[in-house]
Amino acid sequence: MGRRNRAVFSIDYKTKEVLSEEDLSQLEEMWRRSVARIIISTTLAGSGHPGGSMSSIHALLLLYAMIRHNPQDPRWEERDRVLMSIGHISPATYSVLAEYGYITEEQFLTEFRRAGSPCAGHVEQAVPGVEWNTGNLGQGLSAGAAMALAQKLKGLKDAKTFVFMGDGEQQKGQIAEARRFAVKYGLSNLFGIVDRNHLQIGGSTEDVMPVRVREEYEASGWNVIYCPNGNDFSLCYKALRQALLKQDIEPEVPTVLVLRTTMGYGVSFMEDQAKYHGAPLKKDDAKKALEELGVDPGLLDEWEQKRANTHIKAVHCKNPEAAYPKIETGVPRVYGAEVNTDCRSAYGNALEDLAKINNSADELKVLGVSCDLEGSVKMQGFHKVSPDAFFEVGIQEHHAAVLAGALSREGFSVFFSTFGVFAVAETYNQHRLSDLNDTHLKVVATHLGLDVGEDGPTHQSIDYVGLLRNIFGFSIFMPADPNQTDRIVRYAARVPGNVFVGMGRSKLPVVLKEDGTPFFDDSYEFVPGRADWLRRGSKATLVAYGSVIPEVLGAWEILKEQGLDVGVLNMASLKPVDRDSLIEAAKIGPVITVEDHIPETGLGGIAASVFVEEGIVPKFRSLGVNSYGASGKPKDLYKMQGLDRESIAEAVKGLCGT
Amino acid sequence: MGRRNRAVFSIDYKTKEVLSEEDLSQLEEMWRRSVARIIISTTLAGSGHPGGSMSSIHALLLLYAMIRHNPQDPRWEERDRVLMSIGHISPATYSVLAEYGYITEEQFLTEFRRAGSPCAGHVEQAVPGVEWNTGNLGQGLSAGAAMALAQKLKGLKDAKTFVFMGDGEQQKGQIAEARRFAVKYGLSNLFGIVDRNHLQIGGSTEDVMPVRVREEYEASGWNVIYCPNGNDFSLCYKALRQALLKQDIEPEVPTVLVLRTTMGYGVSFMEDQAKYHGAPLKKDDAKKALEELGVDPGLLDEWEQKRANTHIKAVHCKNPEAAYPKIETGVPRVYGAEVNTDCRSAYGNALEDLAKINNSADELKVLGVSCDLEGSVKMQGFHKVSPDAFFEVGIQEHHAAVLAGALSREGFSVFFSTFGVFAVAETYNQHRLSDLNDTHLKVVATHLGLDVGEDGPTHQSIDYVGLLRNIFGFSIFMPADPNQTDRIVRYAARVPGNVFVGMGRSKLPVVLKEDGTPFFDDSYEFVPGRADWLRRGSKATLVAYGSVIPEVLGAWEILKEQGLDVGVLNMASLKPVDRDSLIEAAKIGPVITVEDHIPETGLGGIAASVFVEEGIVPKFRSLGVNSYGASGKPKDLYKMQGLDRESIAEAVKGLCGT
Repeated sequence: MGRRNRAVFSIDYKTKEVLSEEDLSQLEEMWRRSVARIIISTTLAGSGHPGGSMSSIHALLLLYAMIRHNPQDPRWEERDRVLMSIGHISPATYSVLAEYGYITEEQFLTEFRRAGSPCAGHVEQAVPGVEWNTGNLGQGLSAGAAMALAQKLKGLKDAKTFVFMGDGEQQKGQIAEARRFAVKYGLSNLFGIVDRNHLQIGGSTEDVMPVRVREEYEASGWNVIYCPNGNDFSLCYKALRQALLKQDIEPEVPTVLVLRTTMGYGVSFMEDQAKYHGAPLKKDDAKKALEELGVDPGLLDEWEQKRANTHIKAVHCKNPEAAYPKIETGVPRVYGAEVNTDCRSAYGNALEDLAKINNSADELKVLGVSCDLEGSVKMQGFHKVSPDAFFEVGIQEHHAAVLAGALSREGFSVFFSTFGVFAVAETYNQHRLSDLNDTHLKVVATHLGLDVGEDGPTHQSIDYVGLLRNIFGFSIFMPADPNQTDRIVRYAARVPGNVFVGMGRSKLPVVLKEDGTPFFDDSYEFVPGRADWLRRGSKATLVAYGSVIPEVLGAWEILKEQGLDVGVLNMASLKPVDRDSLIEAAKIGPVITVEDHIPETGLGGIAASVFVEEGIVPKFRSLGVNSYGASGKPKDLYKMQGLDRESIAEAVKGLCGT
Repeated sequence: MGRRNRAVFSIDYKTKEVLSEEDLSQLEEMWRRSVARIIISTTLAGSGHPGGSMSSIHALLLLYAMIRHNPQDPRWEERDRVLMSIGHISPATYSVLAEYGYITEEQFLTEFRRAGSPCAGHVEQAVPGVEWNTGNLGQGLSAGAAMALAQKLKGLKDAKTFVFMGDGEQQKGQIAEARRFAVKYGLSNLFGIVDRNHLQIGGSTEDVMPVRVREEYEASGWNVIYCPNGNDFSLCYKALRQALLKQDIEPEVPTVLVLRTTMGYGVSFMEDQAKYHGAPLKKDDAKKALEELGVDPGLLDEWEQKRANTHIKAVHCKNPEAAYPKIETGVPRVYGAEVNTDCRSAYGNALEDLAKINNSADELKVLGVSCDLEGSVKMQGFHKVSPDAFFEVGIQEHHAAVLAGALSREGFSVFFSTFGVFAVAETYNQHRLSDLNDTHLKVVATHLGLDVGEDGPTHQSIDYVGLLRNIFGFSIFMPADPNQTDRIVRYAARVPGNVFVGMGRSKLPVVLKEDGTPFFDDSYEFVPGRADWLRRGSKATLVAYGSVIPEVLGAWEILKEQGLDVGVLNMASLKPVDRDSLIEAAKIGPVITVEDHIPETGLGGIAASVFVEEGIVPKFRSLGVNSYGASGKPKDLYKMQGLDRESIAEAVKGLCGT
């Protein structure tokens, strides 16, 4: 055991119809070493998932022998990808990666599941050869579809993507969404591999939740290849070879291999035992298992000793950098005082400009993903200019979110747009996992807040700040008008990282300076973490963002007429937030936050935290959405929640004691 | 038009093989009136969804003639249910409900989509006859499955549930999850009806995202009945009758009817036009449409006038009350100082007690829903005691969340348990819609926080407070030890409404008083909004909850030894929060919040808001999870984030300036 950078074992499946005796004997040895590692690693860690690791190890070992990859250059662009959707069978992954020279056996066995090591319980990209951080089931096929699509978009003709999935995992609805997408976009280079061991953590898949796996893939239009024994190298090879050569199957559609396997295969007392899905052997049993495998059981003690002697520096493991394209942002569009449009249209225009400047017949840099709302989110212009860069995913937001996230690590600037309730509330956990993968996704959500109006509370997104504040990597930007939208969208396209840009549905007047010219004029540049003083005032400050800005400026007007001189601070950058301006406001006098959002989790909460942390606390009131809205005109809904200009003005006066 | 409480039109499908001429002529008249209402309502509202309303109206009109229902008693327990999963075809729903006497035509036409009216853009239960508030697509079949299951659980042998769905909607993955559940639990009384008009908002379903609807249902094991023209009453009747009589289909499985229809059917220039999915006719066109229907176009003006004259009181429309069962909470279990267990086990024990006391062979009151984690969330005892009350949904959290929510409005106390990342982050939007339906769901999430340990960041739920604070109806409770868990779980079972109870993975010592006896002893009663002073102190206060409590008490010990007298406040009720105790702490001196959660969106943010609102601001610091955790022992992860007792003690000393 334990050879670093060993010669990569490979099999030329194009010429070799069946495995040779030599192949088999070599594979058997690799298998024995791998299973021993699976047992040793989980037993020494005291946790982990040996059962599924052992059922899937044959296919994994074979796959790496058949695909194009380079352990010396794990991110080689032309490589075939193996994405482990079942992130919990990390012991199998690390075993195979050690076998093929990506990592050392020593690192795996001494560090597995220890804080600070990349050899985590669920696979992470910090380990060379791992394509995607996974753990929550059902998202892998979506990420794999993005990789297969990226391979096609980059013209990597022979490059393939393999997604390794569990059979319990097939229960997740998102997989059905990914299947349809893969068929629609002809992802013939996408291969699913299902480890059909008929067990999941709760017992038999038939008891927990039956899925007709093959029938469902067939119904979706996939090729289905069944291997009656996935723990037999020869049979497994036959199935993989048929898939790779596309023998007797449709060449233009994706393919799934369903491998009938045995959980815990290779150790008599582990086989077909659901409990070994997620639990390791005790030390004594582990030694028995090693003996059964013909491996020296003393290895367990040896590795235990080495593990104890290995100190891991407690650092956060970083994913490898993913290239972000150089995006030209073009000439901003300035909307004059006379313009009456919505931020959505300004977004659509800017996105169209970005496509014109950056996308060409030779190369696409800016991509768009929509969920049956192309018209509502104003992506038609982009679609028309760059039809090959636009992906209509249908009403499949979970898949769309992961697809867009994974595409954004492939050298594209990806815009994902739909209504706020779908772009954030429905897909929060998908974005969370994308963020763990250090994606560069641009989520542009429209129809936020009560401003969505008559569609009613199911469609009123009043929580997007409160939700996205929990995802460390996301910036949150809320433009105040079409001009600021234009500038923020261009900024978002240019920078790497995850960015949220939000807007309502209604038309918004162009924000003007007191002299009547556009506030966000051609000299304006968006800077994250910098708020805009739309109006300066000496008595109090209204702090707001997004669709309520016209009402806030209206309140300012009312108060001005009544002789109360207040400032208006536009907080377009909510994360990072402009702490200095908030403190400045607090030093002036009372502060009133206003938002088409729940105040405690939105700007109201953010401002309160800043004040307390800085120890400068003004008289304070937060206005916002304090109960679910009704179905009606936004104007009426604002009034019902005290967000109309008159109510805002009254609130200011109340707080100022005038 | 306009007859209130008209005699309900009905057809005895058991005896009548085909519709009579008289039936047909009556249905045609109902259809004409209904389509006129669809056009008038949307044109006058200036928004809405006429197209799908017109494609589905024949089936809806027929269905209400064939099922058992009572407009005088819309919530009659033995009724058949019609759940509109496509909430946007509210104009069809209200038309049919007006036709059958549930509401008046006048209310619908004068109030549609106006703030304060129950006649919302997407259907809400505030309208008699509406079974479920919908709007976000793909959740209806899950809610319908819950209703069909409830009908079975209540022994309502003939009661059926019909779920009306769109064909675009079939793209949502959650539907695949619901399908499998319905087959597993033999919901033969569940009927899906798919309005297959081949159009969705973005155009042809084949262009947007092809779905092989019939093949997918068949692959899932459903009966599939196809009607080649769903806008032909006779053909539609034939299909509905076959479904209801279970002719030539499997009697024990659910059935879907796929009705081939025409969007905008009945008005020549609207037919097959995707734009009328979500847009009304202009006034002129509306009059032309009415003329084509043979309806007086002057009606449009008449209703416009009436609409203008109708004032709607801007109130929030409430869903009808749903009965909550009387739950006996039994004798609390008190865990002694010597006990070493986890809150999960205390939850499992309490739930088992609740089943023993409240569930019987005759009646089930407490139900449990799990997602392939029965053992991990400790539901085995409950499952064993009450096997018929336990539902294993598999790795299908979206379906499970809606199922559990909808079941909780059927007179059951429903406990939904899985890991935090699945119970909250993955299913946030499902809970949001359940809350809009005023459900009584008990979400008990385990494995919260860094405390989940080696499973790593994909499994570390560090945002649950930050997320759930955005759902108005949810309480958030975080027990400090097994004793408090026991009391909170019993409390949650007893009270109506949505309750979240959260806990980590690890064993927690029993919280003790300074005299060494259990703090939450047999005299303790859980009261929401009341925090627990675990220790009183004069110099500063540590405020904390959940899994960090042992570390916080450890810090207290360290500080005590060093002569710093601090208090420890356990904030088990985070929503509602105990404002008075926070203020009391602020008056004592510096406040340090500690949590296994992102501090800005958790207790740290909550406390800051309270301080600012009350204008009493102490020296403040919030400790928590400030970056994604690693995969390792919870102890190591706490140390990495400064949540170990030593770091906490240091932070207190720093803030106190000692």
